[in-house]
Amino acid sequence: MLNLRRRAAVEALGTAMLVAAVVGSGIAAQRLFGADAGLALLANAVATGAALLAILLALEPLSGAHLNPAVTLAFAVRGTFAWRNVPAYLSAQFGGAVAGTALANAMFACPIISVSQRVRSGDGQWLGELVATFGLLVVIWGCGAKPDRSPLAVAAYITGAYWFTSSTSFANPAVTVARTLSDTFAGIRPVDAGPFVIVELAGAISATALFAWLSRRAANVAASINTARAAGTTP
Amino acid sequence: MLNLRRRAAVEALGTAMLVAAVVGSGIAAQRLFGADAGLALLANAVATGAALLAILLALEPLSGAHLNPAVTLAFAVRGTFAWRNVPAYLSAQFGGAVAGTALANAMFACPIISVSQRVRSGDGQWLGELVATFGLLVVIWGCGAKPDRSPLAVAAYITGAYWFTSSTSFANPAVTVARTLSDTFAGIRPVDAGPFVIVELAGAISATALFAWLSRRAANVAASINTARAAGTTP
Amino acid sequence: MLNLRRRAAVEALGTAMLVAAVVGSGIAAQRLFGADAGLALLANAVATGAALLAILLALEPLSGAHLNPAVTLAFAVRGTFAWRNVPAYLSAQFGGAVAGTALANAMFACPIISVSQRVRSGDGQWLGELVATFGLLVVIWGCGAKPDRSPLAVAAYITGAYWFTSSTSFANPAVTVARTLSDTFAGIRPVDAGPFVIVELAGAISATALFAWLSRRAANVAASINTARAAGTTP
Amino acid sequence: MLNLRRRAAVEALGTAMLVAAVVGSGIAAQRLFGADAGLALLANAVATGAALLAILLALEPLSGAHLNPAVTLAFAVRGTFAWRNVPAYLSAQFGGAVAGTALANAMFACPIISVSQRVRSGDGQWLGELVATFGLLVVIWGCGAKPDRSPLAVAAYITGAYWFTSSTSFANPAVTVARTLSDTFAGIRPVDAGPFVIVELAGAISATALFAWLSRRAANVAASINTARAAGTTP
Repeated sequence: MLNLRRRAAVEALGTAMLVAAVVGSGIAAQRLFGADAGLALLANAVATGAALLAILLALEPLSGAHLNPAVTLAFAVRGTFAWRNVPAYLSAQFGGAVAGTALANAMFACPIISVSQRVRSGDGQWLGELVATFGLLVVIWGCGAKPDRSPLAVAAYITGAYWFTSSTSFANPAVTVARTLSDTFAGIRPVDAGPFVIVELAGAISATALFAWLSRRAANVAASINTARAAGTTP
Repeated sequence: MLNLRRRAAVEALGTAMLVAAVVGSGIAAQRLFGADAGLALLANAVATGAALLAILLALEPLSGAHLNPAVTLAFAVRGTFAWRNVPAYLSAQFGGAVAGTALANAMFACPIISVSQRVRSGDGQWLGELVATFGLLVVIWGCGAKPDRSPLAVAAYITGAYWFTSSTSFANPAVTVARTLSDTFAGIRPVDAGPFVIVELAGAISATALFAWLSRRAANVAASINTARAAGTTP
Repeated sequence: MLNLRRRAAVEALGTAMLVAAVVGSGIAAQRLFGADAGLALLANAVATGAALLAILLALEPLSGAHLNPAVTLAFAVRGTFAWRNVPAYLSAQFGGAVAGTALANAMFACPIISVSQRVRSGDGQWLGELVATFGLLVVIWGCGAKPDRSPLAVAAYITGAYWFTSSTSFANPAVTVARTLSDTFAGIRPVDAGPFVIVELAGAISATALFAWLSRRAANVAASINTARAAGTTP
Repeated sequence: MLNLRRRAAVEALGTAMLVAAVVGSGIAAQRLFGADAGLALLANAVATGAALLAILLALEPLSGAHLNPAVTLAFAVRGTFAWRNVPAYLSAQFGGAVAGTALANAMFACPIISVSQRVRSGDGQWLGELVATFGLLVVIWGCGAKPDRSPLAVAAYITGAYWFTSSTSFANPAVTVARTLSDTFAGIRPVDAGPFVIVELAGAISATALFAWLSRRAANVAASINTARAAGTTP
């Protein structure tokens, strides 16, 4: 197990790579496909999913590869991640995400930082973003019993959710904030980032509550069986 | 093991997410690709396959992740799922599927429910749908000896079958019914849903019968070897 | 272990599903993309790779899932498959492949059998087809030490080889013959099938010889170490 | 374990197959998509990623499947690969890569060798290539604790990096040199290859230094715990 400083460094590295992949592939797609937003989204989704799979497979053994404040907070709420480590993880994720945007901009010879003008707003997109993050946490909690499935499940989920949610599935507060800093395909206006982050957290909390209910009953059942056994009423 | 109510809740959740992915990515694809039905189907297939992989990996440990009345019924026929649990699973799958359609419609700011006008009919498509569900059950039964392969095999199968069957592979009675309720890319006229469901069940039964034949002989061979052993004619 | 008749039935089933996927997705792609052969090949490659992955994952535990006379013969040459079982496997593969073509044609309301007019010939394509089958056997022999990797490796290989070989990688004598019977995207003129089959077998033999050389030396080294140990010259 | 000559032969084989896949799918894509460089890159990325996955899964047990001088050198620097074997691996990788280009050219009936005229230069692309190789080594080092993840992680990484780096991610000195010898989609001018190789090595070294720092602290922590245990200050 790495110490906290190194684990936070891994979180920063992973989130930077993720955002560089999201923003960088968006810029490449925009340049190569121009006005054809469908093909640009297809390339963006394939590239993001593939990069995310690689990053999660490689970094999960080192830091858990949350790469997402909504995931870190959900783990803390359920008690599988220590609250005292949350500030280091969140700082690393936000810092890494901003660095990833700057890196993508620099690779494609855009200004290092440019404030996005892209409007992403409205009831439909807010619902989409809530669904996106709810589903992401369903996938993560569902893989809890078989954690080696998690990297593939999460990467596949995001690939699909780019298409099946109306918001194209940001599903990550750090990535959302970082994407305000590139006025390109993957960008979002700073004024639109706040509502996105709020519904992302609401989605993550909802899924976490659902799995608390699922596992509490399981725990209750297990407890009552143990009680019955102790009382001699079952073999 | 979760109790039946919670397992049914997981089936409803998973089927809702699956249908939201199918219908939602269909709407996104239709909007972005317009009249280009080839690219729309490519995006729809990639998004559905990726989302299905994530859902199956995450929920299979909780409820078995049937997400499909044809699968639940096939398991019941072969005795690997209790008949007394079938009503709860089927209700959850149909209810979840309808909820998933409504959710997809809402995310993309369509009417929550709109009856599909899309014609899907004819001998070719019925044969296609029979083949689609036959093949799905072949894949599921075939993975019976190595069940950890099942999520990837099923998701890959559906991705391929969107293209290689003439019906674009609904292969699921609950999904078929739910898709009558969105007048978008993935929709199907209510009048066409009946024949689809019938051939889906026929395909599932055929594959189940085939695997019963395959394993019965295997069982017979095992039985005769045991008999021979008991009789002292083999070591 | 199933008896030979059942294993041959599984080979026929799997080869039929594979060819139905190849030919069926070709027809769908041709209809949806028309003259755009690039997008048709992309959809054809994705659909074939996904379907092949599902089929191999599901049927490998039952029959080994050769689905390919070149593979069965290569296994027989190297002694990992009994020569006496070869006729049953080859018959099943050719019969299944032809049935798969007829099924694909029927699903898409084409004549059940129509002789292909598509020219596939020339030094470049013959070299491509030799490379395609050589590479396929390299992948299969290479996975010999970790056989659970084989389904994913083979399916990924074929997906790539559709693009990187000039012949679009038939790499399978049974599939080649069956594809003469559909005058659609995936077809090949009967007169061109002969040379394809010849270079496919040459490619399979070359890869098999290469791996015989690789493993023979390993065996020699192991033998000489054992000899030395027996002679007391190594610990 | 194969002897060095055979392992080098496997490296040559694997690098040749990789380069044949990169260059061959580039030629096919260029012919089928013509001026549409976006779709050509999409097909090239999917084909390269799929072929690379197959090659790595199959050949990793035989030679480690470095297929890349930057990887071999990074392993040597960190002490996980013997320096005395480096010359054989590097020779095999460069020789195999050149043979793979010639093979791809021949399959598509191009001149066996043609010097590329394609300009790939500039600060943005050099940064892109540095990021590409840095990320590749992050993925490889990160999978060190779970090496069975490495083939999938590396193949997914390259698929994504084709899109998210401005250089389309050569990330391999042997592949870079070999791609000077095909005046097609995947080519690079000889004069541009030098700077690419330099930044590739810089990226690989940077990632290797980062993981040395990560693991050194882990080693220090382990060492101090052991010291403390020996001194009786911890249980």
